[in-house]
Amino acid sequence: MPKIVDHDQRRAELADVALDLIARHGIKAVTLRTVAETAGWSTGVLNHYFRSHNDLLVGALRRAAEIQGRMFKQLRGDLSTDPMQRLRQLVESVLPLDDRRIAMTRIFLVFYAQSAGDPEAREEVADYLHNWRRVVERVIVEAQRAGQLPSELEPARLAMELVALSDGLAMHAILDEQVLKQLTKAGSLRIELVENSFKLSIG
Amino acid sequence: MPKIVDHDQRRAELADVALDLIARHGIKAVTLRTVAETAGWSTGVLNHYFRSHNDLLVGALRRAAEIQGRMFKQLRGDLSTDPMQRLRQLVESVLPLDDRRIAMTRIFLVFYAQSAGDPEAREEVADYLHNWRRVVERVIVEAQRAGQLPSELEPARLAMELVALSDGLAMHAILDEQVLKQLTKAGSLRIELVENSFKLSIG
Repeated sequence: MPKIVDHDQRRAELADVALDLIARHGIKAVTLRTVAETAGWSTGVLNHYFRSHNDLLVGALRRAAEIQGRMFKQLRGDLSTDPMQRLRQLVESVLPLDDRRIAMTRIFLVFYAQSAGDPEAREEVADYLHNWRRVVERVIVEAQRAGQLPSELEPARLAMELVALSDGLAMHAILDEQVLKQLTKAGSLRIELVENSFKLSIG
Repeated sequence: MPKIVDHDQRRAELADVALDLIARHGIKAVTLRTVAETAGWSTGVLNHYFRSHNDLLVGALRRAAEIQGRMFKQLRGDLSTDPMQRLRQLVESVLPLDDRRIAMTRIFLVFYAQSAGDPEAREEVADYLHNWRRVVERVIVEAQRAGQLPSELEPARLAMELVALSDGLAMHAILDEQVLKQLTKAGSLRIELVENSFKLSIG
């Protein structure tokens, strides 16, 4: 009987190898060859899952979005912490404070850049951003229900601001040691709602 | 008498051609050959100014940073508006609300992504971010002197937050129509300092 190959699983494993290479050596280290070599497969096998270099990078992005999406969902559903605490964790989950999150920030940054000139890739990125904002928005609504945030505020607007601020900080932190130092120094991130906007303190 | 060539000026002109190609066709359209062709020079002449493809891209980034830096300086020094108004203009100058700013946002995004895996390019980007934060910080100090912001706040921290938020919003706006729509709808951007952090309202 032939061995049954779980193609989705192997595809995910290969995408993980690509993400790992990005984390350790940057985006340029990812080619069909280096991923095949690192994973211990031939480039022929790799070609079965990713037809081109671009296809491989899109695979890595989708994998990163899937991992991050699962993380968002998990943080959102963790009822052992209160909503404001969960908002803090949602922001922290995207800040490049360890290898995993450095890799995530790098790959998203690369795809943001790539998708600026590629409608198909842009749709993938926009979907990811929508999903992220929706998760944040839901937790904001929970915080409003719990009386932690004023109920008259528009959750969608607050979510858009918080997500943009988080992403801007993540991006600057991998580009500029000074920003990373500030984030690391902060120890724990504070998020407070002041009047009708978030205050995210990183000092 | 041989014609005197202003090498700095020609270098700037070639970088402008690269920036224009990036704005119109994305980063992939920029090669030594396409820039030479568009500018009406041989690749031999181009090689005199940019030794490699990477050198050309770094040249384009420096040119973009120079243009943006001049804009920052001009806004900072415009004493006809009060410091809080100048802060608002500094943020607006990076939001992709017209073609010029859309092009700039794209270019910086591409270079941010590229420099994440390239120490030399990263230094260029970090310098640009330092400069941007310094300009914002100086206007914050002026606002403090004018009594528009509380004097006990740390200008460097506020500058870091405002710059990250602005860049995050700019980036999301070129990736996601929904964010752009919100920014456009806002008409005029409001920046207020609430307690000890900026509140940037985009709704």
